[in-house]
Amino acid sequence: MSTLSERILGGPAGSYVDRRIDRAFAHDGTGVLAMEAYRRMGTPEPTRPETVSIIYDHLAPANTSQTATLQKELREFAAAKGFSLTDVGGGICHQLMSEGRVLPGEVVVGADSHSCTTGAFGAFSTGVGATDMAAIWAEGSTWFRVPETIGIDLSGRLPAWCEAKDIVLTVTGKIGMDGGTYRALEYTGDGAAALSMAGRLTLCNMAVECGAKAGLFYADKTTQEYLARYGHEVEQQKPEEGPYCRELHIDLADTEPVLSVPHRVDTVAPVTDYAGTPLDQVFVGTCTNGRYEDLERFARIVRGKEVACRTIVVPASRAIMQQAAKTGVLADIIGAGCMVGPPGCGPCLGMHMGVLGEGETALSTANRNFKNRMGVGAEYYLGSVATAAVSALAGEITSPEGIL
Amino acid sequence: MSTLSERILGGPAGSYVDRRIDRAFAHDGTGVLAMEAYRRMGTPEPTRPETVSIIYDHLAPANTSQTATLQKELREFAAAKGFSLTDVGGGICHQLMSEGRVLPGEVVVGADSHSCTTGAFGAFSTGVGATDMAAIWAEGSTWFRVPETIGIDLSGRLPAWCEAKDIVLTVTGKIGMDGGTYRALEYTGDGAAALSMAGRLTLCNMAVECGAKAGLFYADKTTQEYLARYGHEVEQQKPEEGPYCRELHIDLADTEPVLSVPHRVDTVAPVTDYAGTPLDQVFVGTCTNGRYEDLERFARIVRGKEVACRTIVVPASRAIMQQAAKTGVLADIIGAGCMVGPPGCGPCLGMHMGVLGEGETALSTANRNFKNRMGVGAEYYLGSVATAAVSALAGEITSPEGIL
Repeated sequence: MSTLSERILGGPAGSYVDRRIDRAFAHDGTGVLAMEAYRRMGTPEPTRPETVSIIYDHLAPANTSQTATLQKELREFAAAKGFSLTDVGGGICHQLMSEGRVLPGEVVVGADSHSCTTGAFGAFSTGVGATDMAAIWAEGSTWFRVPETIGIDLSGRLPAWCEAKDIVLTVTGKIGMDGGTYRALEYTGDGAAALSMAGRLTLCNMAVECGAKAGLFYADKTTQEYLARYGHEVEQQKPEEGPYCRELHIDLADTEPVLSVPHRVDTVAPVTDYAGTPLDQVFVGTCTNGRYEDLERFARIVRGKEVACRTIVVPASRAIMQQAAKTGVLADIIGAGCMVGPPGCGPCLGMHMGVLGEGETALSTANRNFKNRMGVGAEYYLGSVATAAVSALAGEITSPEGIL
Repeated sequence: MSTLSERILGGPAGSYVDRRIDRAFAHDGTGVLAMEAYRRMGTPEPTRPETVSIIYDHLAPANTSQTATLQKELREFAAAKGFSLTDVGGGICHQLMSEGRVLPGEVVVGADSHSCTTGAFGAFSTGVGATDMAAIWAEGSTWFRVPETIGIDLSGRLPAWCEAKDIVLTVTGKIGMDGGTYRALEYTGDGAAALSMAGRLTLCNMAVECGAKAGLFYADKTTQEYLARYGHEVEQQKPEEGPYCRELHIDLADTEPVLSVPHRVDTVAPVTDYAGTPLDQVFVGTCTNGRYEDLERFARIVRGKEVACRTIVVPASRAIMQQAAKTGVLADIIGAGCMVGPPGCGPCLGMHMGVLGEGETALSTANRNFKNRMGVGAEYYLGSVATAAVSALAGEITSPEGIL
């Protein structure tokens, strides 16, 4: 019996393995740092450049001349090395990797902490530093200590007004910000099987918020159907469910709409505890909750109504924005008075496109509410898309319970 | 006989008049400065707060905590003083003033140099400094020296591949960057009458680029029909055509696609002279060319094709973006690989959302190509929407001649 991480990495928990890297990606921020590290290594020829993606999402499009000049340099570097580059407006790296670039059983590294996102495909996907990334470009491989695994068994079905985000915030509250350090989170059970790929990506995306190295789902019929849309025929992975260093059992029917309260992701409380808190800004998007399903759910709630505070909606990729434009979802969102930003990280990193002012309070569908991250002296709550939608309409924190 | 400016301001050219201000607006940048000036004046009660609009467009949404904190302060100030405020995502001030907020015969001041835009409605519309704006908030009036007028007679019809932007660049090239200083530009003739409101707004928008105080069209049937959409019933203005200090006659049939070549707006040359110049970025938008007609024209050219350089498209207002979302224009633009930004000034001011890197070259539909404005050490050409579209598809400067 072995966990999915053990199976993919090829060794028992605690062992050290050398592994060929199937996909390696960086964004405009870490890509520049990795490029600089690569040059300090003497700019070797990359071992397998066809596995490398550079995706511009963090400061995309450029916020200053300096940023633009660095991006120009990285563009030229990527072209010279034969790396694929997705320029501004393409979307968030984790989302683009989710659009057919990661397959079950692969070992994937990204120079961003939320690279655990694509574990949703049954891949071992994790974040590395920019210097590690430079070494991986050169070698095409790296070493791992195989993590122990926390098994998270999901049973039952979510209430209509809850979503994957409520599950993952609940899980993060239970495990705590460092309770998963260097472990993998493996989701199993009929509740996991019932989740859409979008939901699974939301769950895996936040694995790092309790310190985990990876978050994983076994590839199943849902995975097959999703990847078939991108022309990939993949096999299912048979769950062995263990050995686990810890097990959690969550009945999804008991889930309620929750928030991460400032300034920690693991201070999780029912939305109703904070109902009525006035909001200056609501933000819907990011690698956690900027997918088409999220925008569609948001639009369904705000359609024909008017938001009561400034509301920023940012699709996670060009494909998502185009789909939302075609189906009328985008027109509904704009019509409700929201600002729709270009595909990318938006204000999540607090460096452009919707930074908060001192003393302001916001609700965001992102994955981090660290102090000063989205604005110096601001407070922000993390919640689901439905919570964001009803709160935007009310201009204050509001529970979506019963509305969907 | 008197010019439209003389008629509206109520005095002959050269005389000084005191005028009640019908509409006064500022954006997030100048609004903050005007607020500070207003406080230095002891924060008097505004005379007619219902005439004042604050519109967030320049750094919208906020690019830093400091910006966000200033915007928060201005929001609170506007609410306390009874000023209307359009928050982030609403669009560019000049466009929003064009959506039913300016009527023929009015005296309109904006704390932005392109406030001459709404002269297209037969109003006297001009830019003032932030300190002047504070005084206008307090007094509800200000003084003007009535400008002399340059009469610009447009005859004939544009070739299909030319547009209002080609006319105004041609005019700017003829008059020069200071040839219109403290004068008004009055457009007349059957060629002027045939222009849509969008085209007239483009022409008036750039009056300031030759130093002019205002650009004006006489209100006619087109004006009436346009304003009726916003519930306004207005009268036509009968042109008297003079007295003019200078007259220009332009046969639109002779117009060709032109560019403003770096780094002056009045260095105007045929697009063909620069054909083949490689482009790093194309930008379509701004108060000059971010209207629905512009997006529709751009979409018609790029539909089903793929842009060959990074291309940023920014609708000038929420209403425009919503219309483009509803009609499929937005989906076509996104599908061609463009990045669509939120309604506002976009990268035009070089402070966020697409600033250029050192040594980069761009083509923009904006109104200014001053050195370092859109990026330190960058070069940018100004051209029409059609020129931008064909150039984006080619990745190099390309003339639209014959393609439409």
